[in-house]
Amino acid sequence: MLVSALLTSLLINSGLCVLFFTLYSILRKQPSNYEVYMPRLLAEGESNSSSIFNLERLIPSPDWVKTAWQLTEDDLLSSSGLDAVVFMRLINFSLRVFLFAGVIGVFVLLPINCSGNQLQYVDFTDLSNNSLDVFTISNVNNGSSKLWIHFVAVYLVTIFVCCLLYYEYRYISQRRTDYFLTSKPQPHQFTILVRSIPVSDGSGVSEKVDSFFREYHPSTYLSHIVVRRTNKLQSLINDAKKLYTRLIHLQSDPNQQKYKRSSCFGLFGRKVNLVDHYEKKLEDIEENVRLEQSEVSLAGEEVRSAFVSFKSRYGAAVALHLQQSTNPTHWVTEQAPEPHDVYWPFFSSSFLRRWISKLVVILACILLTVLFLIPVVVVQGLTNLSQLEVLFPFLTSVLTITFVSQVITGYLPSLILLLFLKMVPPVMEFLSSIQGYISNSDIQKSACSKNIPSRLAVAVPAQASFFIAYVVTSGWTSTSSELFRIFPLLWSLIKRPFTDSRDTELEVPGIPYHSHTPRILFFVLLGINYFFLAPLILPFLLVYLCLGYIIYRNQFINVYAPQYETAGKFWPIVHNSMIFSLVLMHAIAVGIFTLKKLSLASTLVFPLPVLTLLFNEYCRKRFLPNFVAYPAESLIRKDRQDENDPTMPEFLDELISFYQDPALMPLHYSGNSDRLNSPLLSSVHQA
Amino acid sequence: MLVSALLTSLLINSGLCVLFFTLYSILRKQPSNYEVYMPRLLAEGESNSSSIFNLERLIPSPDWVKTAWQLTEDDLLSSSGLDAVVFMRLINFSLRVFLFAGVIGVFVLLPINCSGNQLQYVDFTDLSNNSLDVFTISNVNNGSSKLWIHFVAVYLVTIFVCCLLYYEYRYISQRRTDYFLTSKPQPHQFTILVRSIPVSDGSGVSEKVDSFFREYHPSTYLSHIVVRRTNKLQSLINDAKKLYTRLIHLQSDPNQQKYKRSSCFGLFGRKVNLVDHYEKKLEDIEENVRLEQSEVSLAGEEVRSAFVSFKSRYGAAVALHLQQSTNPTHWVTEQAPEPHDVYWPFFSSSFLRRWISKLVVILACILLTVLFLIPVVVVQGLTNLSQLEVLFPFLTSVLTITFVSQVITGYLPSLILLLFLKMVPPVMEFLSSIQGYISNSDIQKSACSKNIPSRLAVAVPAQASFFIAYVVTSGWTSTSSELFRIFPLLWSLIKRPFTDSRDTELEVPGIPYHSHTPRILFFVLLGINYFFLAPLILPFLLVYLCLGYIIYRNQFINVYAPQYETAGKFWPIVHNSMIFSLVLMHAIAVGIFTLKKLSLASTLVFPLPVLTLLFNEYCRKRFLPNFVAYPAESLIRKDRQDENDPTMPEFLDELISFYQDPALMPLHYSGNSDRLNSPLLSSVHQA
Repeated sequence: MLVSALLTSLLINSGLCVLFFTLYSILRKQPSNYEVYMPRLLAEGESNSSSIFNLERLIPSPDWVKTAWQLTEDDLLSSSGLDAVVFMRLINFSLRVFLFAGVIGVFVLLPINCSGNQLQYVDFTDLSNNSLDVFTISNVNNGSSKLWIHFVAVYLVTIFVCCLLYYEYRYISQRRTDYFLTSKPQPHQFTILVRSIPVSDGSGVSEKVDSFFREYHPSTYLSHIVVRRTNKLQSLINDAKKLYTRLIHLQSDPNQQKYKRSSCFGLFGRKVNLVDHYEKKLEDIEENVRLEQSEVSLAGEEVRSAFVSFKSRYGAAVALHLQQSTNPTHWVTEQAPEPHDVYWPFFSSSFLRRWISKLVVILACILLTVLFLIPVVVVQGLTNLSQLEVLFPFLTSVLTITFVSQVITGYLPSLILLLFLKMVPPVMEFLSSIQGYISNSDIQKSACSKNIPSRLAVAVPAQASFFIAYVVTSGWTSTSSELFRIFPLLWSLIKRPFTDSRDTELEVPGIPYHSHTPRILFFVLLGINYFFLAPLILPFLLVYLCLGYIIYRNQFINVYAPQYETAGKFWPIVHNSMIFSLVLMHAIAVGIFTLKKLSLASTLVFPLPVLTLLFNEYCRKRFLPNFVAYPAESLIRKDRQDENDPTMPEFLDELISFYQDPALMPLHYSGNSDRLNSPLLSSVHQA
Repeated sequence: MLVSALLTSLLINSGLCVLFFTLYSILRKQPSNYEVYMPRLLAEGESNSSSIFNLERLIPSPDWVKTAWQLTEDDLLSSSGLDAVVFMRLINFSLRVFLFAGVIGVFVLLPINCSGNQLQYVDFTDLSNNSLDVFTISNVNNGSSKLWIHFVAVYLVTIFVCCLLYYEYRYISQRRTDYFLTSKPQPHQFTILVRSIPVSDGSGVSEKVDSFFREYHPSTYLSHIVVRRTNKLQSLINDAKKLYTRLIHLQSDPNQQKYKRSSCFGLFGRKVNLVDHYEKKLEDIEENVRLEQSEVSLAGEEVRSAFVSFKSRYGAAVALHLQQSTNPTHWVTEQAPEPHDVYWPFFSSSFLRRWISKLVVILACILLTVLFLIPVVVVQGLTNLSQLEVLFPFLTSVLTITFVSQVITGYLPSLILLLFLKMVPPVMEFLSSIQGYISNSDIQKSACSKNIPSRLAVAVPAQASFFIAYVVTSGWTSTSSELFRIFPLLWSLIKRPFTDSRDTELEVPGIPYHSHTPRILFFVLLGINYFFLAPLILPFLLVYLCLGYIIYRNQFINVYAPQYETAGKFWPIVHNSMIFSLVLMHAIAVGIFTLKKLSLASTLVFPLPVLTLLFNEYCRKRFLPNFVAYPAESLIRKDRQDENDPTMPEFLDELISFYQDPALMPLHYSGNSDRLNSPLLSSVHQA
C-alpha cells in the first residue's frame, strides 16, 4: 500500500467522523430524536422534551463532550453498574498501554525504521508514492545492531502490560467484592438452579425438591419453584401481543380504514368493524392462554429443573458448591441468574435437543471462522491492483485514475471487511442462544469469546500496512457511527410517519457487550503485535481509543441502560485475550529477529512467553476464583449484616416469586387497550 | 523373530516359573522364611511357628493355591481394604477382556492370518524356522475381503471393553459409597488441611486459625493443630533410632566385642565399655531431641499450615469445598490424608523450594521418558542378529551356534528391557515425593500415572513379534518372582547370621501399587492393540493374568498389609488408561486398513474413537466426582448415624491428636533397651 492510498482512506474517514459528530451535535437536540439519542434519559423522565424552537438547536455544540468527560467512575457505577465500569476500564487500560507503547514506537522505533535502507526504493522527495513498508521494521538492515532497540522495546512493553494487567485484575476483583458487600439483597444471591431432578413415576417434581432439600438442608432451605415447559404458551402470548399492538394503532389513528368485508377478496359479504373483530380475536387468544396456563400449571409440563431459594447467601453457596447426590448427574446445581436475565426458551427444549444443538454450534463456529478467510483473501486481492487488472481487463481504464485506485486500495478493502465483521456478533449471539445457556448475560459472554477467533481469522493473511488503514476505517468510523446510531436513527425516521410517538413503548437498549468488547480487544491485539513492526499504527489506535473513551461514556449516560449485572465477569475474557496478544507478539518477535538475522535476540525472546504464561497462571489462581463465586468470608459477612435489616422477612417471603416464568402470569389485554404502558405489557417484554 | 527363538524364550521362562513355584511351595513352609513369605500372618500372630521338623515340609504342596483361589471379595475387602479389591478387579477385568478377545483372536483371526499368502516365504514343513509374522495380519492378502472380519473384531472388542468399563466403574463407585457408609468414624473424614494461612507479624498461626474458624464456622469447628518444621528433629530421632538398634544388638549378642580403646586407631588409651558408651551417647541425643522439641513447639518453626477438625463430616466438607477468603491464595483447603499416611518431610521445605522442585520434576519426567528410548533401540538391535555381527565381527563364531542365537534374539532383549523397567517405579516414586504431595498415597498415585508414559516409550519402536516374547519374559517371570520374593529372600538370608530374629521388629510391607498397576495396564494396552494384529499374543497374556490372579491373592493374604486406604481412587487411572488403549488401537486400525488397501474399512473405523471419547466424557461426569469427594447426601446420612453413637464424644476429643507430628512425641530410648517392640519405636517408624 502506498502512503497516498492511506492518506485517501484517512481523508474519507476523517470526513465521515466530522460529519457524524456535527450531525450528532445538532440532531441530538431535536426532541423528535430524543428516543434515538437519549432513550435512557427519556425513560428516566430526566429529559425536558420541550418542543420550543430556538436557534441554538441548529448550532452544533460540543457540551455533551464535557459532560461525558466529567463522568466519574463512581457515577458510572451507580448509574450503569459494574459491567459498564469494567468496559470503560478496558478502554482506559488500552489507552495507557498505547500511550506507553506509542512514545516508544513513534519517538524511538519509527526513526530507526526510516533510517534503514534495506528496502531500496525509498524516495524521500515524493513521500506519498513510497510504500508504507518504509516505516516498518522491514526497512531496518538485516543483522543491524539497531534491532536490539526493538528487542528492548518488546521486553519493556511486555513488562508494562503485565504490571498493568495485574493491577487492573486486582482493582476489578476488589471492586467486585465491594460491589457485593454494598449490594442490596438480591434474589439471585439466595437462589440456585437445580437441574436433572430424578423423579420416579407418579410423584411430582415439586414434592421431590421439597423433600430433598428439607432432608439435607433443613436449616437453610426456604422455598422453590419448578420450571415448566411454556413454548406453546409463549407463542400464544406473542400472538396476543401483536394483535394488541395492531388494535392500539387502529384505535389511535383516525385515518386508518376500520372496516373490511368479511368474505374472501374483501369484495363481498357484510362490512365488519375491524376493532370489534380484533377485540373478539384477542379475547379468544386470551381465553386460550388462560386454558393453556392452567394446563401447564397442572399437568406433565414440568421440566425436571427448579429454582431453589435459601434463607441465606451462605446456605445457597453451600448447596451450590457441594455435590448433592451420590449420582453426580442428578441434582446438578448452578448459580441462578438474575430473574429478568433468565433465558426462558432454553428450558423448553429437551435434553437431547440441547446436547445436539451444542455439538452443532461448536461445528458451526469452527466452520464460520474458517469460511471467514474467504472475504479476507478477496479483500487482500484488492490491495494489489495489478492482480485486479489481470482478472478484469475492462477495468483498466477506470483503475488508471489516481483517486479511484487510491480509494480501491486504501479504503474499499477495510470497508468490505468492516461490513463482514458487522455480521459476526449477531450470528454468534444466535449460535450461543441455541447452545443452552440459561441467561442472556451468559449468552453474551459466550458470544464474546466466540467473536474473538473469527476476528483473528481476519488477521492471518493480512499485512501491517493494511491494518493501519483498517484501524482508521473500522475503528474510527464504527465508533463515530456508534455515537450517531445510524441504524436506530434510520429506523426511527422510517417508522415515525406510521406511529404516534406516545403509543409505542419506549425500549431502552442495553449495550451489546458481545460486539463492542471483541472489537476493542482485536484492536489491542493489533496494536500490541504491530507496535514494534509498524509503529505507525499507534497514533491511529490512540485516536480511536480517545474517540471510544468519550463516545462510550456519552452513550452510557444517554442511551444504554444496564440489562443485567454480571459484576465484572467480562474481565477474565479481557485478561486472557491480552495474554494471548502478548504471547502472539513474542512468537512474531522470534520469527522477525530470525528473519532479520539476529538469532541471539530471537533466542533471548524465549523466556518472555514462558514468564508471561507463568504470570497468567498466577493470576488464574489469585483472581479468577473471585470471578466465579463469592468466598465464604464475604457471604457470611453479608448475611450477618442482613440479620438486623427489618425488610429481610418480607424480602424472603417474596423471593421465589421473582423466578415465576413470565409466560405463566395472568394476561389482561382485552378491554384494556387504553392502559398503554401497563406493567403487564412490560412483563411480557421481559420474556 | 523366528518361531524357534520364541520357543527358546518360552522354554527358559516356563522353566523359571516352575522353579519359582516349586521353591516357593517348599520354602514357605520353613519357619525361618516366615518373615519373608508370610510377614502379615506373623504380625497378626496367626502363623504357628512350630519348629518341629517333618517330611511334609520338604514336599512342595499346592495348598496355598487353593486358599488363594477360595478368597472371596468380601474377605479381601475386610482384610486388605478397598484398594486391594480394586487391584484384584483390574486383573479380573483384564481376564474377562482377553477371554473374549482371545476366543475371537485364536479361533477366528489366527486361522485367517495363517491362510493368507502375502508373505512368500511360509514353509509349513518346518514351522519352527518360520518368522512369527506368518501369524500376524501382515500375512493376509492386501485388499482381501477377509480383512472385514478383523474390522468386525475391532468393533466387537471396543463395544465389549466399553460395556465392561461402564459396569466396572459403576460397581466400584457403588463399593466406594458403601465403604464410606459402613466405615467407622475416621479422623481424616472430619479433618481438612488448611495452607497459606495469612499471618501478620507478632501473632501466631494458631490464634489466627482459631479466630478465623470460630468466626466463619462457629457451629461446626472443633479444633486444630499447627504443622511445625521438624526436619532437624527428624534427623536427630533417626540418629537415636540407629544407636538404639546398635545397642540392642550389642546387648543381645554375646559374641560381639563390647570394649574398644578410646583413642585413635583403637590401639592406645584405656578400654571403654561400648554399651556404656552408646548409652551415654543415646542419652545425649535424647536430651538434644527434648531441647529441640520444646524449641520447635515454642518458637517460629510454625509452618503456615494447620490440620483443622470439625464436629461433623459435612462441616469439614463445607469448609473444604467453599473458597474461604476473599484472597483465593489464602486459607487454601484440601482433604486431610489419613494420619499415618501424612508425608511429614513435605511440610519442612519452603514454598519456593516446593515450587522449583515441581518444575524440576516435570522436566525430569519428560527427559527420563525420552531417554528411555535408548535401551529400547539397543534392545531392538539385538533382535536383528545380522546387525550385531557387522558391529562385532569377533562374535560371529559364537552367534552361529543355534541355541545362543535363539537366546540372544528371543530372550535377552526382553530381559534387558525388564531390568530397565524395574528401575522406573522407584525413580518415579522419588520424583513424586519431592514434587510436593502431602501423603504417601498421593505420591504413589502420582508415580503410578508417571510410570505409564515411560512404558509407552518402550512400545514406540518395537514390533509385534517382540512383544510376544516380552509378555512371556517380563509378565510370567516377574509375576512368579513376585511370588518368590527374590530380593526380600536374599536380604533375609544375608542378614540372618548377624541378627537375632526376635530382635528386629517385623516390618509388614505394603503393596507398591505404583509399580504393579502400571505393569498390568501396560500388558492390557499391548493385548488390546495387538489382538487383531498378532492374536498369538493373547494366550500368553491369559496365562500371565491367571498367574497374577492367583499370586496377588496369595500375597494379599500372606504378605502385604494395607498401608493406607484411598477407597478405590486408583480406578480412574485404570479407566483412563483403558480408554487410551482403545483409541490407540483405533488409530492403528486406521493405519493398518489403509496399508492393506481397504480404505473403506479405515474410514468406517473413524466413528469408533469419537464414540469412545464421548463415552469417556460421560463416565467422567457420571462417576469421577464420586472418586474426588463424597456427596452431601452420604455425608449427612453418615453424620446422622453417628448422632446415636455413644463413643463419638470421646472420638471427637481425641480427633486432632492423631495429626500430631510423630517427631514431636516424647522419646524414651535410654534405659529402655529391654522393651523391644515398644509402641514408641513403632510410632517413630511411622514417621
